[in-house]
Formats: sequence, structure tokens, C-alpha cells
Amino acid sequence: MKKAVILLSGGLDSATVAAIAKKEGYELYALSFDYGQRHKVELEAAKKIAEFFKVKEHKTAKIDLRLFGGSALTDEIDVPKDQTNHDSIPLTYVPARNTIFLSYALGYAEVIGADDIFIGVNVVDYSGYPDCRQEFISAFETMSNLATARSVGDKNHQATHLKIQTPLINLSKKDIIKVGLELGVDYGITHSCYDPVTQDDEVLACGHCDSCEFRLKGFKDNGVRDPRKYLK
Amino acid sequence: MKKAVILLSGGLDSATVAAIAKKEGYELYALSFDYGQRHKVELEAAKKIAEFFKVKEHKTAKIDLRLFGGSALTDEIDVPKDQTNHDSIPLTYVPARNTIFLSYALGYAEVIGADDIFIGVNVVDYSGYPDCRQEFISAFETMSNLATARSVGDKNHQATHLKIQTPLINLSKKDIIKVGLELGVDYGITHSCYDPVTQDDEVLACGHCDSCEFRLKGFKDNGVRDPRKYLK
Repeated sequence: MKKAVILLSGGLDSATVAAIAKKEGYELYALSFDYGQRHKVELEAAKKIAEFFKVKEHKTAKIDLRLFGGSALTDEIDVPKDQTNHDSIPLTYVPARNTIFLSYALGYAEVIGADDIFIGVNVVDYSGYPDCRQEFISAFETMSNLATARSVGDKNHQATHLKIQTPLINLSKKDIIKVGLELGVDYGITHSCYDPVTQDDEVLACGHCDSCEFRLKGFKDNGVRDPRKYLK
Repeated sequence: MKKAVILLSGGLDSATVAAIAKKEGYELYALSFDYGQRHKVELEAAKKIAEFFKVKEHKTAKIDLRLFGGSALTDEIDVPKDQTNHDSIPLTYVPARNTIFLSYALGYAEVIGADDIFIGVNVVDYSGYPDCRQEFISAFETMSNLATARSVGDKNHQATHLKIQTPLINLSKKDIIKVGLELGVDYGITHSCYDPVTQDDEVLACGHCDSCEFRLKGFKDNGVRDPRKYLK
């Protein structure tokens, strides 16, 4: 059975990616990151999603992206609200985050002998994030194929065994949700909110950060109610 | 003053790189990794070297490369001795290590606004390590220039502001040490051994692992005694 490393954030996108990889016949090795994000509820969601898809293994790498600061998601900067129409780099951008995540995935793939790494990057909603663009992903893939032990024996350095799979990269949120619903993803266990609130031991999504707004609109466009619980 | 991120392992090579960057007029931002390596003495050496070169800032990122296993340096595999003439990938190779290290350096560089990342990779002694080769470094540099916020405004994606500097890549150990001695590096505070021994509260180098053998030969070839303390 062919193996794939799936970057699993606990969000809607990565859950959809897991469903796609599973449907394509991969044995799933999920990788999550405890990176000092404000919203640890993400990691609990990742765990639930991993169980939902019966992954072979689920690793969580503890890394400290707060070390350098520079983002509303890891630093003491307020999460922006109601600002999905920004032209510049969003405050929620974390420097080198996808580069670091993919680098860990590369190490994991090499150790388990996987040829495929799945990541739920999306250029439609996250056009301001440099490390969500196809150019970046392609360059990372090229680099990856020179970084591993398998590439050493290849005199022409033409090994291209490793693929960075980005099945959502050009999909709208509406289409991502449509694909996921068709594949039976339980979106009620996913978490996308940048600024969740705990009420009566339940973690609720805020409904107003970039991520909530994209998500709610995506469900609305499908004519389906988002099963995630939101702050009233 | 132009800024540079220096990957500082505590070893002879990275200390020499720091000396070279300093001489070239950079303000140094040192980055070390606590990656579950067996030999924590490396990190103490990195601290001493950072002080020696009066770096502007020294960050140590705690990351867990043991999560995946697969190397004699992080896993429960014995460190090989007296085996510098290997044709295959050494057991001390850590999957994706330099990719991960450089990814963190990229995030750090972006936050402080540095255009240069210095890394002491060397293809002469470490020909078996895929992530020490120029092809890999060049591919990482290309990827880096697509990964950062600065590259987004560039419509042609031709930004090449970031440079991965590898001043040692083609030097023999003899020449690295020669350069360092000329620049006044105190090699007595550097640590290269893969398998150190603590004796009377002092950490001694073993003298027989790959790393010690390369180092001792390098000093010998310069006709200079290695100031590092070794196990008798």
C-alpha cells in the first residue's frame, strides 16, 4: 500500500485533503504541529480527524515558531477581524511556516519511505500567503528531491520520486467543502477559527475572523449548514 | 549594518563560518538547535562561540528530530567508529536536518530583515550527506526566494534577495581550519565529537568518531595542535 504524509492542522482544508488521499488509496501518516499557536483546540481537532480517517500513525511535532515572533497567530498581536479583503500580507501570516512544516514532512516521508506529501494549501483564499502559491510548492518539491538520501545515488540529480500534493490549491472554499461532503468528511470535528472562545467547556468558533468568514461563506454557497459550533 | 543569520552548531565548521561572516561586515544573528541530539555539549559550545563573536542575538530553537528516528545522532543506533571511508549514506545522517534548520533560519531572517543565511555545510568531508551538496543549497535558495512575504509583491517571482551562503562548501578540513586560524577562531571552545565522554566534570572528545577523525587530521595537516581536549 502506498504511503502518504498528510499535514493535518485540524482545519477544514486538511481534513478534506486527508479524505482525498484516503480515496486515492494511500495509507495515511498524519503530521501535526504544536507550534505555540494560540488555539490549541486545533490539535484536538487534528486528533479527532486522524481517528476519523483511521490513519496508520499520527505524530505531533512540538516546535516553537514564537521564537522569532512576527505573526498574529503566534505573537502578541491582535487577530484581525472582518478583514478578508486585504491586499497585503495578512497579519496571520507566520514567517516560513509552510516551509518548516513541509521540511518536517520531508523528514517523516524519508523515514517511513513515503513518496507523497499532502498539504491543504489554497491560493484562492490565501492569496496573500507566499507559501501557499504553486511556485513555492514546486520549488519546495524540487529542493526535496535533492535533500533526501535517496537522491544521492542519482548521478544526474534527476530523482523526482517525491511529490508535494496540493489537491485544493486552486479550489474555492465552496468547492473544497463540496468535495469533502461528497467524500463524507465530518466537518463538525474540524476547527478553523483563529480566535475561538471557550463557553461551558465547549470551544466555539468566533464567526468573524478571516478563517471563520471564508468557512461560513463556503457552507452557505453549498446551501449546507456548517456543523461546527459558533459563538451566538 | 547588514544582518546575517548564522547556523551555529557549536562545531568547528560553524565557528569558522561565523568568523567569515563577521569579517565580511555582517551583524550576526546566531541560530542553534536543541534537536534531541545525544551530545548537548554542542549547545554549550554554541553559546561560547556566540559570546566569542559578540553576536547581536543568539536563539536556540527546541525541535524534536527524534520524533521520526532514523539516525545514529538522534536515535538508539550506535555511533559508528573509525569508518570515515564509507561510500553510502552515513548512519549519522539525520533525515531532512539541514532542510529543517534552513527553514527555521528562513523564518528568522524574514523577521529580522536579513538577506543572508550562513551555513557551514561541506561537501568534501560530508559527501554522503545529500543536504550538504551545492545542488541542494541552490534549490533551497530558489525555494526561499518564493517563500517569503517579500517575494509576493514581485509579479515575476524573480526576487532573489535571499542568499544561502556556504563559504566552506568546497574546502577541505585542512583549509577550513587554516581560514579559521587566520581569523583568530578559538577552536578550543568548539565541539565536533559525535560521542563525547564526561570525565571529572569535563566533556572530552572521543577522538575516533568520523567527526573527531576529520578534525584531528585537519589540525595535523596544518601542523597545529587541536586545542580541544580529547579522551586519552
